[in-house]
Amino acid sequence: MTTAMGVPVVWPSKTPDRAKILSGVFEGQTTGTPIAIVIENEDQRSKDYGDIAQRFRPGHADYTYIAKFGLRDHRGGGRASARETAMRVAAGAIARKLLDQVLPAPVTIRGALVQMGPHRIDRDRCDWETVEDNPFWCPDATAAEAWGPYLDGVRKAGSSVGAVSEVVAEGVPAGLGEAIYDKLDADLAKAMMSINAVKGVEIGAGFEAAALTGEQNADELRRGSEGEVVFTSNKAGGVLGGYSTGQPVVVRFAVKPTSSILTPRKTLTTAGEETEVVTKGRHDPCVGIRAVPVGEAMMAIVLADHALRHRGQIGSFFSGKLG
Amino acid sequence: MTTAMGVPVVWPSKTPDRAKILSGVFEGQTTGTPIAIVIENEDQRSKDYGDIAQRFRPGHADYTYIAKFGLRDHRGGGRASARETAMRVAAGAIARKLLDQVLPAPVTIRGALVQMGPHRIDRDRCDWETVEDNPFWCPDATAAEAWGPYLDGVRKAGSSVGAVSEVVAEGVPAGLGEAIYDKLDADLAKAMMSINAVKGVEIGAGFEAAALTGEQNADELRRGSEGEVVFTSNKAGGVLGGYSTGQPVVVRFAVKPTSSILTPRKTLTTAGEETEVVTKGRHDPCVGIRAVPVGEAMMAIVLADHALRHRGQIGSFFSGKLG
Amino acid sequence: MTTAMGVPVVWPSKTPDRAKILSGVFEGQTTGTPIAIVIENEDQRSKDYGDIAQRFRPGHADYTYIAKFGLRDHRGGGRASARETAMRVAAGAIARKLLDQVLPAPVTIRGALVQMGPHRIDRDRCDWETVEDNPFWCPDATAAEAWGPYLDGVRKAGSSVGAVSEVVAEGVPAGLGEAIYDKLDADLAKAMMSINAVKGVEIGAGFEAAALTGEQNADELRRGSEGEVVFTSNKAGGVLGGYSTGQPVVVRFAVKPTSSILTPRKTLTTAGEETEVVTKGRHDPCVGIRAVPVGEAMMAIVLADHALRHRGQIGSFFSGKLG
Amino acid sequence: MTTAMGVPVVWPSKTPDRAKILSGVFEGQTTGTPIAIVIENEDQRSKDYGDIAQRFRPGHADYTYIAKFGLRDHRGGGRASARETAMRVAAGAIARKLLDQVLPAPVTIRGALVQMGPHRIDRDRCDWETVEDNPFWCPDATAAEAWGPYLDGVRKAGSSVGAVSEVVAEGVPAGLGEAIYDKLDADLAKAMMSINAVKGVEIGAGFEAAALTGEQNADELRRGSEGEVVFTSNKAGGVLGGYSTGQPVVVRFAVKPTSSILTPRKTLTTAGEETEVVTKGRHDPCVGIRAVPVGEAMMAIVLADHALRHRGQIGSFFSGKLG
Repeated sequence: MTTAMGVPVVWPSKTPDRAKILSGVFEGQTTGTPIAIVIENEDQRSKDYGDIAQRFRPGHADYTYIAKFGLRDHRGGGRASARETAMRVAAGAIARKLLDQVLPAPVTIRGALVQMGPHRIDRDRCDWETVEDNPFWCPDATAAEAWGPYLDGVRKAGSSVGAVSEVVAEGVPAGLGEAIYDKLDADLAKAMMSINAVKGVEIGAGFEAAALTGEQNADELRRGSEGEVVFTSNKAGGVLGGYSTGQPVVVRFAVKPTSSILTPRKTLTTAGEETEVVTKGRHDPCVGIRAVPVGEAMMAIVLADHALRHRGQIGSFFSGKLG
Repeated sequence: MTTAMGVPVVWPSKTPDRAKILSGVFEGQTTGTPIAIVIENEDQRSKDYGDIAQRFRPGHADYTYIAKFGLRDHRGGGRASARETAMRVAAGAIARKLLDQVLPAPVTIRGALVQMGPHRIDRDRCDWETVEDNPFWCPDATAAEAWGPYLDGVRKAGSSVGAVSEVVAEGVPAGLGEAIYDKLDADLAKAMMSINAVKGVEIGAGFEAAALTGEQNADELRRGSEGEVVFTSNKAGGVLGGYSTGQPVVVRFAVKPTSSILTPRKTLTTAGEETEVVTKGRHDPCVGIRAVPVGEAMMAIVLADHALRHRGQIGSFFSGKLG
Repeated sequence: MTTAMGVPVVWPSKTPDRAKILSGVFEGQTTGTPIAIVIENEDQRSKDYGDIAQRFRPGHADYTYIAKFGLRDHRGGGRASARETAMRVAAGAIARKLLDQVLPAPVTIRGALVQMGPHRIDRDRCDWETVEDNPFWCPDATAAEAWGPYLDGVRKAGSSVGAVSEVVAEGVPAGLGEAIYDKLDADLAKAMMSINAVKGVEIGAGFEAAALTGEQNADELRRGSEGEVVFTSNKAGGVLGGYSTGQPVVVRFAVKPTSSILTPRKTLTTAGEETEVVTKGRHDPCVGIRAVPVGEAMMAIVLADHALRHRGQIGSFFSGKLG
Repeated sequence: MTTAMGVPVVWPSKTPDRAKILSGVFEGQTTGTPIAIVIENEDQRSKDYGDIAQRFRPGHADYTYIAKFGLRDHRGGGRASARETAMRVAAGAIARKLLDQVLPAPVTIRGALVQMGPHRIDRDRCDWETVEDNPFWCPDATAAEAWGPYLDGVRKAGSSVGAVSEVVAEGVPAGLGEAIYDKLDADLAKAMMSINAVKGVEIGAGFEAAALTGEQNADELRRGSEGEVVFTSNKAGGVLGGYSTGQPVVVRFAVKPTSSILTPRKTLTTAGEETEVVTKGRHDPCVGIRAVPVGEAMMAIVLADHALRHRGQIGSFFSGKLG
């Protein structure tokens, strides 16, 4: 009954993952009923998790799962494993196809890494093409060159670093969103914050808006050459009052450094005894890199949700022209 | 049938607001059924909104409401008015009482303004008592003294500035939250981002976590004097894997500068003609100040929701002690 | 700020109820944001509820509220009062208007009382016009004539009787509904069962379907004169597999006899002592009559919900023609 | 990663179904995170569905799926297949275990077939033990004996019949439920009506309540030998005002005759041409029999949902004793 649609899943590992579709697709088309996808863990060896089963890894959810449930599945982090994000990418692939069908014009959703550890990109050197040319999804070729040896050093030291990712959706019509309860920006904040290791989310000018004056922050409105509404800036990041403005929707999120490091850290055993722990195994010094396609997927999912809602509520999409 | 419970609503105006309870309270006690509250607009004069009805104020939701619905209630911003946050404060007052009843120990929720425009507090000079001693909810007495004349200058210039607010909840037991879909930090991000004018949210170290190493970011676990779990730091801001850790839950959010300013801004009329607009009326140069109690309220509401869910799921709360 | 839209509310009493709209309507049009309506209790005298406050009325929710919450608002049944259905009728009036806007053709929703106590209508004598001509919403003029003296007798005896109501929606396009979780008939069943005093719900042939053979129950499909799909019967009641068929949606629900009767009934005090109770006050011997417009309103609300969902999911409505 | 828990699934076929648990169970215990179950279709031969793919089977959802989506998965009824109910039984098995953990005393949930075609059981001859002794889940041994040859006749004639099922939950504490929106009986009505082929649902006296007087319908309250609340009858079916009373929760639902019959029926092709159809394949003349365990499962699921909600809301369960 399972049909391999072959959605490419961005999860680098030796054996490429395969998303198997269990339901909702028939003869190459969605049927309108829920799509269930399973990604089997091909890499499932009988590992020795014993050490980790008995002690809490700082920065991981080991302790909080015990506090919540009194027991936990310690294998690979259990439900808190970032491997879960593979399904988000699969769902995001479907959400993008749905957006193409529902919206009057194509939406382009692209993500990039704009900061690795303390090193930020230079906005004047950026373009989207560069993002595909380096393993960091970095839009700044000069920065990308420097990030390579920097990250090697971090890896060799058994350490890790955080990162900041930016996701931009272009072509979103004005008017998607809700007032008060499910504002578009509030849903985006929840979506991004729900990605493993994310500790901060901002829209448009974000935290920098705090330091701006009202004059600096005002995105002024003008009439474009074809009568369409244009803005002279995008401090709002494409959302005002919880609704899209028609400008690019711009979201950034901060990812904390990988919690699995080779440096011993003080911790407790599940019995409450003081001890230390080192997290061996696959060592990925900057999980923020992997979070870029996950952020793109979450953007697509939130927009698809709001596009369907909007069509239900209104029946059509705003053209971008007044009068 | 209406019962005035007299929940104090933090919304400074000449005639103090009154929250009228329409349902859910009987003889001084909640009945368990929904509590409906109405705050009438006492300040409702027949204002001349004509100018604003026909042109979009940059930074406000005027244009997006037209893009969404094709019409809008322009009076005071309609549904996008920040006056709506008064009901959040009223709901937050009830959520705090509920937390007192549901949780085994008291929770303290406090907010403060930690940045006004470009001016940040000095963490070494802060204490919670100071917050009540100045009109800015500022925990740093020295900073508060400087903010006064600074904000006067902004007001006199007809301008405005943004701000950053921090809300801390102490006494939250470990284990509140959900995996993946309704993580505690994701719900907090949505709650704070849903407040009018908020453009960024962060938990614990937040965006600074991007620049940290895994060693710096690891909150190590130790055994306290009474056998309880203690952490040596709180970079996580009290949330790991979507569940509370038992440490203080720390959230910060950025508020953009007030969009209503006296400097003329370029805009369009609802008919699409280019024009300018000036927003007169009550001039509040830093709405971030008013957002502090709103942030506290949203924290209380999210925690109350998760406390009830947790009790449903588990039936009891984690003691904080292992073994 | 409140605007009296003057939605006629079917709740017979000396002072006609008025639905005050608190939000969501501006200058005679809905704004797209939630519509809050308040119906004040004009009839609120300082009654002596003392007797009822201390003892449970059989058939009422007095005991279950105590079992749930440990306290209750005894005035007029509190939240369990059938007066609550007035707001359903108000909401239904809005749902009808919404259906007119959203669907390609008008929907007609009509209800009738088809059984009072043991007395059923004769289907061969029925027409919708008759429903408006008698105080029972009875579509059978002969039956209606008999019901008058019958109900008078019940009232004089201080007793009460149950009833069965039928609601029919014509003009619903095929395809509204969901599979498995929110089937149209499942949502209708929930909606009708949620009305006070309702104890049974059936769609189409309903319980009689149990006694039919497959041949008798099959609604055969034919091609109509204009190429449209027609059915030769409507045992399904307009729903197959959780989706509307395009035929009339037919729902019946049973209403139990009014629980407030003048005959003393055995009961307990809130302290658990055995006693008796008589329910005085307004005596309405067949609440099923009042439930007719409530059933219509719930039909409209469920259809409006599914019409919006359908438009969101599909973007258009099925024409009723194949090929 | 999959763990066979071996939940017995009531779905009679040659190769017994196996419920494979994909998530949520670790080392024999639930982890508190969602439990995903897959039941593979072992019986999946490459059938010739061609005939059914091109024409609508009366009584099935073939036409409504086309009306909804414009395409459908015709294999075995696609998403409208009653095979879907196997997962409900699996979920119900887990819900029962959950109820055992959450509630203070055991709940017993039992179902029976109380009517097959026009033949009803005699309530005076019934007991629960008999239900297990015949293939019809019939509680009346005499009736069961007659039903055997009756159903053989129906099968041989290529016909089918409907049925009525009753499900009873004993041991449910008083107070489970909600007011207005998610009343316990409303949720039960939705749950039962969502089962394939169900056309009617009733609680307690159900449709018979319409013919009763208020005196007959009043379940009087008395003080039991141990001080507990007892009722002298259970016309309410264990629910008043949307909350459980502590009495047995009694639900009946009507199942229409199997739509797949060997008698040709008039229908249309997907292109709109008039034709006939005969449904061959597995012939099950009374699907109502199979619906009995599904109804039990839905009862368990609804009660489990309300038990968790109640614990969240209140923190404890009512003892059944007053004062």
